[in-house]
Amino acid sequence: MPVAQSPGRGRGPGHAKIADRFVISARWVVPVEPAGAVLEHHAVAVRDGAIEKLLPASEASREFPNYPYLELPDHVLIPGLVNAHTHAAMSLMRGLADDLPLMRWLQEHIWPTETKHVSPEFVRDGTALACAEMLRGGITCFNDMYFFPQAALEAVQAAGMRVALGLIVIDFPTTYASDPADYLRKGFELRDRSREDPLVSFCLAPHAPYTVSDPTFRQIATFAAELDLPVHVHLHETEHEIERSLAEHGVRPLERLGKLGLLGPNLIAVHAVHLTAAEIQVLARHGCSVAHCPSSNLKLASGFAPIEALRNAGVNICLGTDGAASNNRLDVFTEMRSAALLAKAVARDASAFPAHAALRAATLGGARALGLSARIGSIEPGKRADLVAVQMRAPELAPCYDPVSHLVYAAGREHVSHVWVDGELKRAPADLDTRWQVWQNALKGLADS
Amino acid sequence: MPVAQSPGRGRGPGHAKIADRFVISARWVVPVEPAGAVLEHHAVAVRDGAIEKLLPASEASREFPNYPYLELPDHVLIPGLVNAHTHAAMSLMRGLADDLPLMRWLQEHIWPTETKHVSPEFVRDGTALACAEMLRGGITCFNDMYFFPQAALEAVQAAGMRVALGLIVIDFPTTYASDPADYLRKGFELRDRSREDPLVSFCLAPHAPYTVSDPTFRQIATFAAELDLPVHVHLHETEHEIERSLAEHGVRPLERLGKLGLLGPNLIAVHAVHLTAAEIQVLARHGCSVAHCPSSNLKLASGFAPIEALRNAGVNICLGTDGAASNNRLDVFTEMRSAALLAKAVARDASAFPAHAALRAATLGGARALGLSARIGSIEPGKRADLVAVQMRAPELAPCYDPVSHLVYAAGREHVSHVWVDGELKRAPADLDTRWQVWQNALKGLADS
Repeated sequence: MPVAQSPGRGRGPGHAKIADRFVISARWVVPVEPAGAVLEHHAVAVRDGAIEKLLPASEASREFPNYPYLELPDHVLIPGLVNAHTHAAMSLMRGLADDLPLMRWLQEHIWPTETKHVSPEFVRDGTALACAEMLRGGITCFNDMYFFPQAALEAVQAAGMRVALGLIVIDFPTTYASDPADYLRKGFELRDRSREDPLVSFCLAPHAPYTVSDPTFRQIATFAAELDLPVHVHLHETEHEIERSLAEHGVRPLERLGKLGLLGPNLIAVHAVHLTAAEIQVLARHGCSVAHCPSSNLKLASGFAPIEALRNAGVNICLGTDGAASNNRLDVFTEMRSAALLAKAVARDASAFPAHAALRAATLGGARALGLSARIGSIEPGKRADLVAVQMRAPELAPCYDPVSHLVYAAGREHVSHVWVDGELKRAPADLDTRWQVWQNALKGLADS
Repeated sequence: MPVAQSPGRGRGPGHAKIADRFVISARWVVPVEPAGAVLEHHAVAVRDGAIEKLLPASEASREFPNYPYLELPDHVLIPGLVNAHTHAAMSLMRGLADDLPLMRWLQEHIWPTETKHVSPEFVRDGTALACAEMLRGGITCFNDMYFFPQAALEAVQAAGMRVALGLIVIDFPTTYASDPADYLRKGFELRDRSREDPLVSFCLAPHAPYTVSDPTFRQIATFAAELDLPVHVHLHETEHEIERSLAEHGVRPLERLGKLGLLGPNLIAVHAVHLTAAEIQVLARHGCSVAHCPSSNLKLASGFAPIEALRNAGVNICLGTDGAASNNRLDVFTEMRSAALLAKAVARDASAFPAHAALRAATLGGARALGLSARIGSIEPGKRADLVAVQMRAPELAPCYDPVSHLVYAAGREHVSHVWVDGELKRAPADLDTRWQVWQNALKGLADS
């Protein structure tokens, strides 16, 4: 039963539809679900963009004799990585300003640059660059929060990636929208226009407790419940945010969001660095997700998120790169490694957040946070074929006692050899799009002035 | 004036001597000294393995008309990276046992494996694998601490790398040596045999405060002073180490080493995670170096080293990967990034340990700790030509406002395009040596049993 092609699929130079049906056979398949499974010499049959069957390689050619067969003898096949929090277009600000205190970074560099430059063209070009980087690194789906999401969507569709587009809302005007109602209206118009594309889903994206008012949050809570949309919000990122909330609202941000009706399985709390033991229980009880951004939390000196305590409490953990102005890599391999390593030192326990947990957070954890766990996040029959092959034959990956250990602790995105989104093999562009150079020159002028 | 070839140079398949004299011209040269310099369109003239001149690219072909000319239009040229602490042969135990509490990791996995398997063959093969990984990743010199250093040296000479070999001393017998005198005797015999090789230097390497007795430390202090050798020792790595020292010696390890005469510019304190403010001042006052191993400190849950406080106190910081059983990457790019990011969150200051400081620690800091700063660690005329080119044209490195930011925060070892040691261009081996597979099978049997 062929699946209808979405408007965004199969277009542009970055795609190669090798077949509607095919088999990938790999040295190892790590399906993520069931947890901890590592299948040696297994194969995945793909049909019309969906995973048809996962079976021993020795049975695959007999069971699927007419399917083209791709053999990956030194590779581990995993579900596509999910980047659960980014601002993709900010790739154009990668390394524009580093090693600065947070407020100088924002006030003297990021905000002036955004005020002067952010436009639909900026967002389209920046998102295109981010997609190229993310696809090369095995990221097949990302959760975006930025201005002009329509322009971001155009770039994502050209790249053929899966996206959860954040319908951003801030209580002050920007070049994108004039007030909360305008942000929401523009967001929902985009959603209405794009709902046919099976690779696209949406989040409500109120920016942060310090940029969104109570009435706006209340309205978002209503929309989230009515439309069953995830709510993607920066939360408890810095001590300053919490102090400000106490001063302005008399409560910490999480308690405020609770009062405004936002706590529930739809909530994606981004960063969640500063949490009391009671707050960890609140997040768990309400079934919230935490988008952990370890590189960004370190680079901006936000602090150390209590990931193992959250995981032990049962909170769904996913991983985000944040934007390239505060990371500066849109690289979920690096976030897996950083998350697994940091959690051990924070928990003072070398067995904390083991490799399998990090890989799960980077795949199924992200899918679950985005409400997509029925479609992606693991290699299971019936799910869409978002798949990544990682080539494990290199001096830095030898020997190999456990491919999941290597995925998290030793390998990098440079070992990604194949990426499929919805069953479609992605090819790195033959040459790098150079639109970023135009922006580099423009932004550099501002930075130097 | 041609320099004599060392016994270890120019041998094996990994080497290509393109010329005794040549010019490398690069988009950027970051010489590390003077601090903070980023030279655009500059060239380095190399003659007989030494840096002859650093000059604008526009003048290079006029000034050196007869030198072969290598143009690197998208690259940044930096000094070779120095891995200031590793156990190279442990590459064979990469990922053998992860996510375990420290004592279970040591007692049930690492020590039984070492007891059963470590031999000259193991060390030679493991060090060869480590050298392949390190050279590919831009590391031109490393400070090693392991058993059978003679076997390690054979592998290093075959790879054509620079090495500081640790003359390991432990107060209990192993298959390598029977008692402290035997360790020292074997170490000094090796030193006597290998002193002619200009790529080889030596450290005294008493393993740690909990494995070395007072008389042995005293003897090492005497040798270090007499022979002006660096002393390479694990120090203040874990709280357990400090508690044990308090129980057994009545003082913390650093104070004990001070009483035994070991504090001075020769001391390389590896890890240095748990330090009081007074101890930071002691390290600074004595001119000691700290070999910071951020990945290992996290992975073993040792803790967070106070790097910015050490740096502000004037302590020389260098970077180490530790061994592949506790990292699992012999990758100084990752250590630079981790060090720069972690220091910010630990110091609660996003401007802490900036990119230039991380690059300096990874090059000149390591050279200084090893007593080699007159020979390597920066791109300055008269120093040996240990050089690394990093190719900066890739989606994940675009745009580029500041190449040093990219080196530390965005690039990885996979972007290394050229590596020279002592003026000799290294080539990645055409195919991976597979001796590691023999060991993988042997060690895996033990792990599964």
